[in-house]
Amino acid sequence: MALQHASPGQVIALSPYGSQIATAKSIALFKSEDLEVMRLVLLAGKEMPSHRVAGEITIQCIEGSVEVTAENATHVLRPGHLLYLSGHSLHAVVALEDASILVTVVLKRTAGQGGAPA
Amino acid sequence: MALQHASPGQVIALSPYGSQIATAKSIALFKSEDLEVMRLVLLAGKEMPSHRVAGEITIQCIEGSVEVTAENATHVLRPGHLLYLSGHSLHAVVALEDASILVTVVLKRTAGQGGAPA
Repeated sequence: MALQHASPGQVIALSPYGSQIATAKSIALFKSEDLEVMRLVLLAGKEMPSHRVAGEITIQCIEGSVEVTAENATHVLRPGHLLYLSGHSLHAVVALEDASILVTVVLKRTAGQGGAPA
Repeated sequence: MALQHASPGQVIALSPYGSQIATAKSIALFKSEDLEVMRLVLLAGKEMPSHRVAGEITIQCIEGSVEVTAENATHVLRPGHLLYLSGHSLHAVVALEDASILVTVVLKRTAGQGGAPA
């Protein structure tokens, strides 16, 4: 995730990687005050094990297909499908085909943040 | 915007309207604790005049093309293009072609909210 982040007002192209997907990398597109937006690449069979994030998230399939398991339900996302999950939802993602997905996370800032954990 | 909102974990299809776009309506897809997500339809020449919202927003073009003017810069968004704008950014959108766009707004909740303006 070494690419430079986009700035406000900068156009980000989300065209499918298509035949280039095997060498594409997951990238962080931007992280702003309230949002973190990533484009993740998951090749067929790859999995993001079950995890939670504090904020709400949306997952949009750009290409390929993924299976999202969240709150004891399983959904298959194909291109153009969007799913949103509440904050703290336990969710896992597995790629059924080579896939890239757009993930938007609402950042939860707490009054006490800023101190790194020891 | 009379359609029922999606719930967390419900798959929302964002396929282009294509030849049906002339009769498609702008819809609110969901409004959650922190996000409001809408799919807006703007037929060629239609404009959303300059306005601001408190929270950060992303605008993603699903089909057609729109011109977004924000903070004294103008950007053309085509299918698969994503733009994010800081909170309180003055922005206007005009459709160059019949277009549908996905707009995600971070809701800003303030301690004093809840009281309706008189």
